[in-house]
Amino acid sequence: MAPAADKKLTGLVAATFTPITSEGEINLSVIGPYIDYLKEKQGVNKVFVNGTTGESMSLSVEERKLLAEEWCRKAKGKMDQVIVHVGCLSLKDTQELAHHAAQIEADGIAVIAPSFFKPSSADVLRTFLQEVASAAPTLPFYYYHVPSVTGVNVRELIEGIEKVIPSFRGIKFTESDLMDLGQCISYSQPHWSVLYGVDEQLLGALAMGAHGAVGSTYNYVGCHVNKLISAFETGDLVQARTIQVLLISLPLLCVLDHLYHFAHICTSLI
Amino acid sequence: MAPAADKKLTGLVAATFTPITSEGEINLSVIGPYIDYLKEKQGVNKVFVNGTTGESMSLSVEERKLLAEEWCRKAKGKMDQVIVHVGCLSLKDTQELAHHAAQIEADGIAVIAPSFFKPSSADVLRTFLQEVASAAPTLPFYYYHVPSVTGVNVRELIEGIEKVIPSFRGIKFTESDLMDLGQCISYSQPHWSVLYGVDEQLLGALAMGAHGAVGSTYNYVGCHVNKLISAFETGDLVQARTIQVLLISLPLLCVLDHLYHFAHICTSLI
Amino acid sequence: MAPAADKKLTGLVAATFTPITSEGEINLSVIGPYIDYLKEKQGVNKVFVNGTTGESMSLSVEERKLLAEEWCRKAKGKMDQVIVHVGCLSLKDTQELAHHAAQIEADGIAVIAPSFFKPSSADVLRTFLQEVASAAPTLPFYYYHVPSVTGVNVRELIEGIEKVIPSFRGIKFTESDLMDLGQCISYSQPHWSVLYGVDEQLLGALAMGAHGAVGSTYNYVGCHVNKLISAFETGDLVQARTIQVLLISLPLLCVLDHLYHFAHICTSLI
Amino acid sequence: MAPAADKKLTGLVAATFTPITSEGEINLSVIGPYIDYLKEKQGVNKVFVNGTTGESMSLSVEERKLLAEEWCRKAKGKMDQVIVHVGCLSLKDTQELAHHAAQIEADGIAVIAPSFFKPSSADVLRTFLQEVASAAPTLPFYYYHVPSVTGVNVRELIEGIEKVIPSFRGIKFTESDLMDLGQCISYSQPHWSVLYGVDEQLLGALAMGAHGAVGSTYNYVGCHVNKLISAFETGDLVQARTIQVLLISLPLLCVLDHLYHFAHICTSLI
Repeated sequence: MAPAADKKLTGLVAATFTPITSEGEINLSVIGPYIDYLKEKQGVNKVFVNGTTGESMSLSVEERKLLAEEWCRKAKGKMDQVIVHVGCLSLKDTQELAHHAAQIEADGIAVIAPSFFKPSSADVLRTFLQEVASAAPTLPFYYYHVPSVTGVNVRELIEGIEKVIPSFRGIKFTESDLMDLGQCISYSQPHWSVLYGVDEQLLGALAMGAHGAVGSTYNYVGCHVNKLISAFETGDLVQARTIQVLLISLPLLCVLDHLYHFAHICTSLI
Repeated sequence: MAPAADKKLTGLVAATFTPITSEGEINLSVIGPYIDYLKEKQGVNKVFVNGTTGESMSLSVEERKLLAEEWCRKAKGKMDQVIVHVGCLSLKDTQELAHHAAQIEADGIAVIAPSFFKPSSADVLRTFLQEVASAAPTLPFYYYHVPSVTGVNVRELIEGIEKVIPSFRGIKFTESDLMDLGQCISYSQPHWSVLYGVDEQLLGALAMGAHGAVGSTYNYVGCHVNKLISAFETGDLVQARTIQVLLISLPLLCVLDHLYHFAHICTSLI
Repeated sequence: MAPAADKKLTGLVAATFTPITSEGEINLSVIGPYIDYLKEKQGVNKVFVNGTTGESMSLSVEERKLLAEEWCRKAKGKMDQVIVHVGCLSLKDTQELAHHAAQIEADGIAVIAPSFFKPSSADVLRTFLQEVASAAPTLPFYYYHVPSVTGVNVRELIEGIEKVIPSFRGIKFTESDLMDLGQCISYSQPHWSVLYGVDEQLLGALAMGAHGAVGSTYNYVGCHVNKLISAFETGDLVQARTIQVLLISLPLLCVLDHLYHFAHICTSLI
Repeated sequence: MAPAADKKLTGLVAATFTPITSEGEINLSVIGPYIDYLKEKQGVNKVFVNGTTGESMSLSVEERKLLAEEWCRKAKGKMDQVIVHVGCLSLKDTQELAHHAAQIEADGIAVIAPSFFKPSSADVLRTFLQEVASAAPTLPFYYYHVPSVTGVNVRELIEGIEKVIPSFRGIKFTESDLMDLGQCISYSQPHWSVLYGVDEQLLGALAMGAHGAVGSTYNYVGCHVNKLISAFETGDLVQARTIQVLLISLPLLCVLDHLYHFAHICTSLI
């Protein structure tokens, strides 16, 4: 069974932080209120769970499962879509998490390329992604592109990718280079989503045709970015630009510190 | 005497190639027809001479003077503005070229940072630029920003820069990072110009508020990019995006080869 | 209980490949003969298991345990020392593997720094290493230094490190920069070992005072490198240099290919 | 006329600083006493003039000529060899300086690769070097290898290089990678010199077979490094290592600051 075609991922997606206790344990109890906060305070109703913002790479497979499960359970009826990032350095671990995401009824999975032994070519990476997707064939599949981490040309990667990954539905594109983005969007199929991941230059990406955005700042300035998107869509570029520049100038303290202080941040957010 | 305030640099500026003969000598005779070609075939009436596209870094000071002089002489009455890039590794050489640019009545000078011994801070670079500008105080001064070459934070550099360089009039900004661009534009004074230098993502830069563009592709696709800019200005983003993506997909052969084959290219252009 | 002081790690240590079957499963049955081969054919009697050569970063925690266990079991009475690399991106996983290494009576553990979220300072890394070491306090602890991966200054890291990691016994130093190596050796305590990890320039490292070497090439040219070390120790630099240059010139095919073809290589070795 | 074969360049070569006045002008008057100081206080009797240490890249062609001339004139009868670095970004400038070096009877020239438009291959660089050498065919020619600046594989470059550059006599090798060094030394012809340029790991390079060293620290610790070399040559590695480690630990202040304060340093040296 192929993924449903009617849930194209667009608009704002918050890359969620991972709440932890002061003892360094994951704190599932915060997730429920976190979801309410995103919906009510930020107007954000899509989440990207266990990604880079969520520091999943520093978590064990078991911890990632517990988190994904809680996000899916608590988001039911509140969030439109929960995308679970399942990428690990190990293919087996990644497949295990993909399979688990299907079991807990996530709305999609995303996968970053292995970063320690980087894929030596687009073909090698495509094969890796294919083996992951085959562990959850009914879930929409998104490639999480961060070239600084993996170095594979994304345009080459997606050429004909649906032949090997029928569930392929798009890209989380985290790169400042908008030429690559333009090429991806240009090649993109109608049911794909190209979501931009460099929050600070979202406006440029929208001009190039990005379908939405995934980012950590949407946890706390999502309501403003929703206005930016609206302004852009109604052709009010001056207003859109004013918001974008304002967001660039925000103190970045919370962002920069987030890696070691989720719990604190999550608490302060809610 | 301060530079005239009424010639704000906007729109398309072609970063010109340097014509050379098959014996490797600069070929001044091509410059006249080159100017006619740009004006008539591309609708481009501003040039950025002796920049990276012009491979000035591989030319001697004397060669650069001869080129700059011919461009200024032949452009008279045909081009709106001739900006001469004068940056060298040596401060003395740079000052000599800046002074020469004033003598030949260029419309402005641009300066890249030294790239062998890179400036260790924004202050060090600001002092370098100031010493160059003082050699041609009546000419509008543009900082040529290529962070991959020099690594100084541009936003920090331009903070209060008119106090030390009264002739400062803007930036040629060659970086894919649009956040930095947004910050520069946001800080930019009304009589400054922020000109974008990554041709492949110009549309994103326009969305962020760039005032114009300097690039090598405008030598041969300037007429199309003029349409892109018009479409953008009338709010037709779909059309603008179509042109941008088309330009990205152009065979890049002529660009990639240009470094060692100017004469050939210049001939084929005209 | 502190680690025994009488087993200072010196000489050649083979960084072992991980045998896998053609189906991509780990192949424990090869490890016994592999050990015999190293001992008899190469004269190598120390191994570094589950390191970069062993591609442990692409394996699951469970696979790494099975491998480490088999190496320790089969090496008993044959190898002098089995060092198990336990570094993972996740601290918990790393601690679990460290604890497991103690249970299976490994002779030491080694830990690389997390490479996805790189440690922001020597202090942050020292704390990470300390938490790992505390999970196996009786095992000699080696820091696996690969600056290209982690970027922390090693000399700063080891300053006073025994105060926080009493079991600290040395460094696997994989960097071409011999100045850093010299500083580490100079600071090194008598019961520490600084083992060099860039096989191609071992002779330079020996001149600087390295106590031994850990590397993948010692799997197949260990017998020659043992002669290089002997020549160096008897002051015959001309002979040592001849061997080193010969080793540099070896076809690197087997090395470059190893990442995706362990099984094949391991079979061909034995 | 080919270069004389009887002056193989070995031992210590000081990469000289460029004395400047407090007004930023080159200060030729310091060069005479500088030479006496090197000879008498440091036991150094070979110099590498107008190199990176001498900041020649920030000087004009005219300034470099004046400096080279003064060094050659004052060194006569005092220094064994004066090697003049003539590399510039411009081929014409480089040829002019090479020709000038022959006129002033320098003992050799050295050339770094252009660093702004880096050579795209070993062939391109070889052609550049050949054109430079042809402007001074009677002078021993040394390639100044700094891969971080130019990125061309040196072993490939020197393959058969004497066929195109009959005056080729060796390499100033400034790279920490001793494998590359070993390959160069191994290929090196008997009348070539491979001189090492990373002062902090000279001992490792000597072990690999380097014939000498060119560096900035030999301006002020040449006398100690002469002892290091003697110890190495008599097989006393412990003593050699002790000196090497001591030199690594020296305060680097003077080195780090030298770029902007030659005059001060030169004064303090003498």
